[in-house]
Amino acid sequence: MLFDATLRWLDLAGIAVFAASGALVASRKQMDVVGFVVIACITGIGGGTLRDLLLGRTPVFWLRAPELLGVAAAVAVLVFVAAHRVENRFRALLWADAVGLSLYAVLGAEIALMAGADPWAAVLLGVMTASFGGILRDVICNEVPLLLRREIYLTAAALGAATFVALRLEGVWREPAFVAGALACFLLRAASLLRGWSLPGYKPRPGRDHTS
Amino acid sequence: MLFDATLRWLDLAGIAVFAASGALVASRKQMDVVGFVVIACITGIGGGTLRDLLLGRTPVFWLRAPELLGVAAAVAVLVFVAAHRVENRFRALLWADAVGLSLYAVLGAEIALMAGADPWAAVLLGVMTASFGGILRDVICNEVPLLLRREIYLTAAALGAATFVALRLEGVWREPAFVAGALACFLLRAASLLRGWSLPGYKPRPGRDHTS
Amino acid sequence: MLFDATLRWLDLAGIAVFAASGALVASRKQMDVVGFVVIACITGIGGGTLRDLLLGRTPVFWLRAPELLGVAAAVAVLVFVAAHRVENRFRALLWADAVGLSLYAVLGAEIALMAGADPWAAVLLGVMTASFGGILRDVICNEVPLLLRREIYLTAAALGAATFVALRLEGVWREPAFVAGALACFLLRAASLLRGWSLPGYKPRPGRDHTS
Repeated sequence: MLFDATLRWLDLAGIAVFAASGALVASRKQMDVVGFVVIACITGIGGGTLRDLLLGRTPVFWLRAPELLGVAAAVAVLVFVAAHRVENRFRALLWADAVGLSLYAVLGAEIALMAGADPWAAVLLGVMTASFGGILRDVICNEVPLLLRREIYLTAAALGAATFVALRLEGVWREPAFVAGALACFLLRAASLLRGWSLPGYKPRPGRDHTS
Repeated sequence: MLFDATLRWLDLAGIAVFAASGALVASRKQMDVVGFVVIACITGIGGGTLRDLLLGRTPVFWLRAPELLGVAAAVAVLVFVAAHRVENRFRALLWADAVGLSLYAVLGAEIALMAGADPWAAVLLGVMTASFGGILRDVICNEVPLLLRREIYLTAAALGAATFVALRLEGVWREPAFVAGALACFLLRAASLLRGWSLPGYKPRPGRDHTS
Repeated sequence: MLFDATLRWLDLAGIAVFAASGALVASRKQMDVVGFVVIACITGIGGGTLRDLLLGRTPVFWLRAPELLGVAAAVAVLVFVAAHRVENRFRALLWADAVGLSLYAVLGAEIALMAGADPWAAVLLGVMTASFGGILRDVICNEVPLLLRREIYLTAAALGAATFVALRLEGVWREPAFVAGALACFLLRAASLLRGWSLPGYKPRPGRDHTS
């Protein structure tokens, strides 16, 4: 359980935006309202659940926190009722996912550090926590995972988590480190979405890799 | 571990029908007999394994219960030998899945309540336990998950789990509440399969959502 | 945690070869270098993570073992830099996966036995540990899972794990049993790759199964 207010609010905000992204995918699949609620809940709690499982913090956080599921369900119903007003639902989904990615990258890294994880492992746990809800959402709904689009996605999560971990190791307080890490992740992801930034991908030499 | 006889039998029955559904998918993929056994085991124990992981009940139940895996393996071999006698294997798969869904929805909810979960969380855990074996089966075998078909699926699991939880909160004994919850889930799912019932899905306004 | 040197080395070798297979899939998807590192890490630690979760050995092993992630990351960077020199990257991926499969099949079975699991369950846990990293890799990267190709895959893992468990129950020392089990798995898988061996798959009767 999280008794710490900052972590609790971050978790809640991450759940809300990931729930919105899950509900938007449900709208793309034309599910019914129960489908919206279940996919929103799974997307919202997916990252935090993986984090708790890997760290051995069971029962996982949402089993005793009805308000978290209530928030995800409320977001899902809101999207079910109002999504047709959104001009471009896929775009809205990308931005909701970007905010959730930023919040969970730092949150996952912090909780890993608190559990005594090594800094490298904290960065990887941050990346996994941040991306797992979206992976679950896309795999369950049979969508191409966002992380496979030729964009900066995992890199942004890794930058956010690494910024946070580096600042913490330097002795920076937690809240400013949170803000810096989440901002670093969000700005890089936003640049990728708005300007089409990307890192050079692997390019096979032409005429060599015909079989692979 | 489950020492309670009723829960144990429910688990066993759920494993057997989900194992049958897994073996039927393996037949669609023309796997060999080992593939049948492994997919049947994974489908059969998937929901219960997720339930145990989320609640922190480790080592998970099947690591010390050879008879459960034996049942799943026997079902798989039976399907391998006899599936060609089944007129419509996809139809058989849907019904086996429906029975498993009904059993695991109430079982997952009950075990969550026993672990002190909040009622909302118990319903969600019921839905997740009921649907996870099938999701694993479909994701591993690269099938379109049943829950994406335009049918009542998650809704039926949610109805069954919610009926059970509501009756338990009203003080009804466990066994009648089990029967009522599982029946509610099964009848709704059966109506969807037989009559094509479905809830209204999300419908984008025409001419608005061309990009999403 | 593993303090035992043999198990530790096996884990490290399994991580390295699975990381290579993950990086090769990342190259097929033309990811950037961060994507290579993340997919290599997830593929490398996937099987061991599932094993630890199912047995309740949390926090999972890599959270306190930076060197393991360092190895996976180094392998990923090496593949990013040098993969274009490999004639047939898909072939290389198959062989890296085969080595990892063999190592993790016996390792998963041994750790299950040490945790008091029943022999049947130890074989299944071996198969799951061996195949899970590759399943994660293929599902996350949207590839057709290797285990669905019409080849001996799960069967090889099951043979390796079963050979190991049978030898251990006969009182054979651990190290020779490791070698025998891993060799049995690898040789069978290699035969399938080189000679196209396969077990008879399920064949529907013609003209019966048009709907399934």
